[in-house]
Amino acid sequence: MISFPSDRVSSLFLPTTRELPADAHALSHQLMLRAGLIRQTSAGIYAWLPLGYRVLRHIEQIVREEQNRINAQEMLMPTIQNADIWQTSGRYDNYGPEMLRLKDRHNRDMLYGPTNEEMITQLFAQDVHSYKNLPLSLYHIQWKFRDEIRPRFGVMRGREFLMKDAYSFDISEKHGLESYYAMFAAYLRTFERLGLKAIPMQANTGPIGGNKSHEFVILAETGESRIFCDARLLKLNASQLQGTTEKHIAPWLSFYAATDDEVDMNLYHEQVPPEYRLQTQGIEVGHIFFFGDKYSIPLGAFVETQNGQKVPVQMGSYGIGISRLAGAIIEACHDENGIVWPSSIAPYLVGIINIKNGDLECDSLSQELFSRFQVMNIPCLLDDRNERPGVKFKDMDLIGIPWHIIIGPKNIKEHVVEIKNRKSGERSFLSFDQLESFFKHISPHHPPSPSP
Amino acid sequence: MISFPSDRVSSLFLPTTRELPADAHALSHQLMLRAGLIRQTSAGIYAWLPLGYRVLRHIEQIVREEQNRINAQEMLMPTIQNADIWQTSGRYDNYGPEMLRLKDRHNRDMLYGPTNEEMITQLFAQDVHSYKNLPLSLYHIQWKFRDEIRPRFGVMRGREFLMKDAYSFDISEKHGLESYYAMFAAYLRTFERLGLKAIPMQANTGPIGGNKSHEFVILAETGESRIFCDARLLKLNASQLQGTTEKHIAPWLSFYAATDDEVDMNLYHEQVPPEYRLQTQGIEVGHIFFFGDKYSIPLGAFVETQNGQKVPVQMGSYGIGISRLAGAIIEACHDENGIVWPSSIAPYLVGIINIKNGDLECDSLSQELFSRFQVMNIPCLLDDRNERPGVKFKDMDLIGIPWHIIIGPKNIKEHVVEIKNRKSGERSFLSFDQLESFFKHISPHHPPSPSP
Repeated sequence: MISFPSDRVSSLFLPTTRELPADAHALSHQLMLRAGLIRQTSAGIYAWLPLGYRVLRHIEQIVREEQNRINAQEMLMPTIQNADIWQTSGRYDNYGPEMLRLKDRHNRDMLYGPTNEEMITQLFAQDVHSYKNLPLSLYHIQWKFRDEIRPRFGVMRGREFLMKDAYSFDISEKHGLESYYAMFAAYLRTFERLGLKAIPMQANTGPIGGNKSHEFVILAETGESRIFCDARLLKLNASQLQGTTEKHIAPWLSFYAATDDEVDMNLYHEQVPPEYRLQTQGIEVGHIFFFGDKYSIPLGAFVETQNGQKVPVQMGSYGIGISRLAGAIIEACHDENGIVWPSSIAPYLVGIINIKNGDLECDSLSQELFSRFQVMNIPCLLDDRNERPGVKFKDMDLIGIPWHIIIGPKNIKEHVVEIKNRKSGERSFLSFDQLESFFKHISPHHPPSPSP
Repeated sequence: MISFPSDRVSSLFLPTTRELPADAHALSHQLMLRAGLIRQTSAGIYAWLPLGYRVLRHIEQIVREEQNRINAQEMLMPTIQNADIWQTSGRYDNYGPEMLRLKDRHNRDMLYGPTNEEMITQLFAQDVHSYKNLPLSLYHIQWKFRDEIRPRFGVMRGREFLMKDAYSFDISEKHGLESYYAMFAAYLRTFERLGLKAIPMQANTGPIGGNKSHEFVILAETGESRIFCDARLLKLNASQLQGTTEKHIAPWLSFYAATDDEVDMNLYHEQVPPEYRLQTQGIEVGHIFFFGDKYSIPLGAFVETQNGQKVPVQMGSYGIGISRLAGAIIEACHDENGIVWPSSIAPYLVGIINIKNGDLECDSLSQELFSRFQVMNIPCLLDDRNERPGVKFKDMDLIGIPWHIIIGPKNIKEHVVEIKNRKSGERSFLSFDQLESFFKHISPHHPPSPSP
């Protein structure tokens, strides 16, 4: 979890609005604009305002931690690439108008990377030559560009988007598939931590190529892919995953699931009992590929085996759409009043609503709690504006802060504060002294210790 | 400080080399290639390998913490911008061939942002309309592109580079200058924490425009600007800065310093006694500007004052070259054996050198210390390769890890480990039990508590 500073609404760049934005059709897109998370700067290109930026970083951090856990190593490749490596791999012409091509001042053909298979293979080929350095998994989290003809659904199908892409290098297909399944397991855990049910499904390998591929899809009506799956997949729980081999993820492989471009309707009907057949729309949030030597041969990534033979390295690639996830999570986590952030990615864990700004006691208690949360390292947003209580309640709901503390003169007299849970709507009253231990208990920074 | 995982050299992507790279003229560039921090992917464009990536993130984090300290708010703008806002500000034609221009699939003129004054002014103008929301400072840390005709000195003058750029918005020139000096103070503190002596100097406002500007320059022979300054500036210490007003930074403003395009030789000789006159080369690592309404008028960023008047907002912009700093710090921190990272940005605080890999006792002690450091949250690099001790010593020096722990059979018999300080070369012997408290004391994660 990243530690962000606490803020006061009065001085924060948080332009919320009640109006329904024109041209925003997806609900998550509307909410991201209304809650002041993003603003569009060009068609399908967005600036992330302070609240949206925090959410993006939290998602990124969870993805990063799960990549590190399986020993993938973080690095960073640039956004602008030479065209020549894409010509070598054969993808330069295939990629079509979605690739943003450009020329530099010396008239060299370059492009804004939509993905990095070519570049990472070239970097690998320059420096790694022996089985001794394998297995190796590298990843980076970087902006990519895909020049969609009709960008839509806000950040879910933007043109400039943030992606985590990982690449695995192995000495044999057998080892390559082990890396593939380890990444599969990491993805299940990642989405679970993000509060999402992501269903892995057999998928088309598309322009990446290769012979094995799974998409991770979350169910949402705004999704652009039609999916066919066994509803029992929704009951599986990745938080209990004990390892990262094919055996550990077997339950997810055992139920039928496929996107419309891969579905075999006979198989679907044969393998899924009628009561479990689920046909719905989904949003792709991750995609993994095993493609063997597709890039290592043309780009010359060969390694020496233990007995001195030179073989092409076996590769896979693994993407998660980080900026897209911000929208996808809102599709999954909202109600009629606005966003309902899971605590793990909320921009602030606590929102303090001072309903009588200017009242000496209310101001001083608000300020005291604000400082206490800072000491506890719990990011907190204090609404200290001169606005009516109703406006403050509505905004705190809209931006989806998980816990609201309401401070008013009546409660102060009774030596309590009112706490509201954004998700359940439940309200309770706590004495000032109980507050600290309560938040220590629920904070992602201070995981609750096992009860005695 | 960011918490990175510990690693074993045997499985880390760390391609060090003894060979002097061709075409790398700056010493920092040579060392970054030799220590496996970066690789060039196109002229003036680099991939950051795992060690280099860590350094970049540490620098970024120090910059971020000092921006947050003066209440600048982090956000994130995209890399690709519409040309029209640059046409409105009048900079589209002025910027010349260093601007990377491109057309999207609909033939719209776009560009890879070299800076973000236009975009942030437009975002501000859309959502902020009142003095009540001022002062406001926003910043982001994002990749920029400047299509240098001859990129050189590695990441110090690359084409794709990471920059922190901040923007201040104020109701009046007086308030605007307060924001300017607060940022000035934040810069002094930032460079101090990075272990650098950065000298603020009067500078030309160049293509940004405006009427007040300072460059922050570190002294280095590979620097491209000639500088003229009072050597007493080098003695000032920003770690004792008590505030962020003009008064607090007055010592830095009181001594003469200017780059060659701004220097007034008469003033220089008049104000600097001969014994303090310093003419040398420098590297610009930061640049701040106050430019009033230069962008707010053309882009329509007006705010209502307390008495209902509409006035253009007063702006400043503030840049720090984050990727450039990685090179600049190496220029300042190296010796004949390689890089000497300051602890605050080192990729690992501790390197463990097992000089007898395969020896049961050496392996098990190395592993035990490695695990202990992980528990202490001290990032540690264990050299567990089957290489001669000399190779391991040389690599650990080259990559500049601040503390080396040397584990060998002789020391184990005597129940000690040898510790070497990379910077001073000092060696000492500690019992296994003393190790933990020693590293607790020096770790940036565990600042030493005041002695009793």
